[in-house]
Amino acid sequence: MYSPDYLHKLTATIFEKMGCSSEDANRAAKVFVAAELRGLPSHGMIRIKDYFQLWKANRINVQPNIRIVHETPGTAVVDGDSGIGMIAATKSMETAIEKAKNVGTGWVSTRGSNHYGIAGYYSMMALEHDMIGICMTNANPLVAPTFSVSRLLGTNPVAVAIPADKQPPFVADFSTTPIARGKLAVSEKKGEKVRFGYVQDKDGNPSNDPAILKEGGSMLTLGGDFESGGHKGYCMASIVDIFSAVLSGANFGPFVPPSVAYLPVRDDQVGEGTGHFFGAMRIDAFQPAGDFKMQMDKWIETHRNAKSAPGKPNVVIPGDPERAQEEKLQKEGIAILPAVAKELKEITDELRVDFDIR
Amino acid sequence: MYSPDYLHKLTATIFEKMGCSSEDANRAAKVFVAAELRGLPSHGMIRIKDYFQLWKANRINVQPNIRIVHETPGTAVVDGDSGIGMIAATKSMETAIEKAKNVGTGWVSTRGSNHYGIAGYYSMMALEHDMIGICMTNANPLVAPTFSVSRLLGTNPVAVAIPADKQPPFVADFSTTPIARGKLAVSEKKGEKVRFGYVQDKDGNPSNDPAILKEGGSMLTLGGDFESGGHKGYCMASIVDIFSAVLSGANFGPFVPPSVAYLPVRDDQVGEGTGHFFGAMRIDAFQPAGDFKMQMDKWIETHRNAKSAPGKPNVVIPGDPERAQEEKLQKEGIAILPAVAKELKEITDELRVDFDIR
Repeated sequence: MYSPDYLHKLTATIFEKMGCSSEDANRAAKVFVAAELRGLPSHGMIRIKDYFQLWKANRINVQPNIRIVHETPGTAVVDGDSGIGMIAATKSMETAIEKAKNVGTGWVSTRGSNHYGIAGYYSMMALEHDMIGICMTNANPLVAPTFSVSRLLGTNPVAVAIPADKQPPFVADFSTTPIARGKLAVSEKKGEKVRFGYVQDKDGNPSNDPAILKEGGSMLTLGGDFESGGHKGYCMASIVDIFSAVLSGANFGPFVPPSVAYLPVRDDQVGEGTGHFFGAMRIDAFQPAGDFKMQMDKWIETHRNAKSAPGKPNVVIPGDPERAQEEKLQKEGIAILPAVAKELKEITDELRVDFDIR
Repeated sequence: MYSPDYLHKLTATIFEKMGCSSEDANRAAKVFVAAELRGLPSHGMIRIKDYFQLWKANRINVQPNIRIVHETPGTAVVDGDSGIGMIAATKSMETAIEKAKNVGTGWVSTRGSNHYGIAGYYSMMALEHDMIGICMTNANPLVAPTFSVSRLLGTNPVAVAIPADKQPPFVADFSTTPIARGKLAVSEKKGEKVRFGYVQDKDGNPSNDPAILKEGGSMLTLGGDFESGGHKGYCMASIVDIFSAVLSGANFGPFVPPSVAYLPVRDDQVGEGTGHFFGAMRIDAFQPAGDFKMQMDKWIETHRNAKSAPGKPNVVIPGDPERAQEEKLQKEGIAILPAVAKELKEITDELRVDFDIR
């Protein structure tokens, strides 16, 4: 078991050894550790190897000049300069929050970025400012539009964080597919089949094989097939792609560069890197913040008091499971899978960083 | 068959006879006719009876003082003063567009409103200004959160309109449930069962009975049950409810007043009327509009050229089916169901308006 602080320092040191400034390395480390704490290890320490290999392949700029390339009082386009996604994303969300302070809301579309970890982290940055935070990103193309077998979209998540008063904040962070990519990988490793409705084979036939993506298959959009409303999930994934990439000048859909070094970047890029979209809305640009937060308490309590179907758990308020996990791991420490710890050991040995597997 | 112009004048005259100003009556009429033209008659002329009956029950203010009650350079809260939803919504979207002209984006949350017809109409108002238009609304509670049997949310639609260059605009307009409420009603009238995954009975058991809502059943969120990602649809419907109602001070979820006069308004209101949310984002607040629109063409063409699964149609670009329908009906005229025409005849007789069933 590792303390959050230990993993933060380890991660920051690794990125510093790769050439990042101390400030940037710490920015990135926060997001990696937040993913572990919130129970999303698929976006945590396991991803350090991907960044390490991208760096060795000269596909990551560790001294990026992250800058605003266009702006109005309420908007900006940020260029991440091929740096680590967590750094471009943190700076982009900071920009959105500053804009919101001035004119009520702030909206930033970001290009030239890379995989940024958990979307929820950036949306939650707005909370301490009594703002609603919004965050989206496009991602490696694995998802087919309704009726199609072409992989044109990523799992394109959306995160929205909304402050409350006595209740904890509402923090939704969800992919626009029935399940996240990582859950397919877990089922595959366990040798289990998955539910029909998550993936299809290369000809569009329903499949329950979690490894079907390796054989030309694709993931379905949220809702599944057309009859079950999958075209609505297709709309959502498309909106995320357009806001993140067409508004910013990043690569959209099928052109998104892979977040792993063993897959090549396409020659026919249509923009710069991966794209994200960030929003911050000041609560008091609409309502006195105190009034709004008390009404959010009432909203949350109404949903907590909903009647459950027999045998089902209580309604889950978005953000509750991740917060419970964070409280638990802050006390107990974070376990790292042996295979991930072994990879980290190899990386830290190469970079001459101290790391002992526990 | 009726020409769009005939139905526009008829609708405007009906609302004028109910006491609306000519300007307001024409604003509302545009949205009713747009629903018919876009192939969504469930939100068109069939709804005039609902408004007529709400007016007779003194639940609609035909001389509303629609006003901005709070604002910043980029945001506003609009109070619809219990008027017709289409009027409050049109004015709210106009406000969002004006704000966007000044600071890049404009965001309006609206309270004290009523059913506003098709969300897509308002999002499309942004297109002629080279803006992206966004529109959401809450609605009568028919939908249960994941794991629950309590009807706490509406079908809460989201519409997003995005301009392109040579390609027609991208116009997504979708409920956050697997199917719209109106489709259940159609299946019920035809005596057909529906697919499992749309509705559940009062105890949360899967049901294929489209009339189950009358027996305490509820609709599921987009995605269906938890295993299929229904909690993501729950997140979306919740976000729409909070942006539309908690930000504006309208009634959220279970407190939304019924859009029909035969259902009573709850005594325990938590806000004013129904709530909506509107956004306008100037394209050139992010990119030169011409560059963006050419890239949108490329995005749309990429999706048009996707490979279809054998036996499946081509990928449907959001907005294409509605636009094709509009082009067809502009030429051929609009058919009104005999039962709807009969209701309109009764209303027009009572209001002494000329109307001949064709």
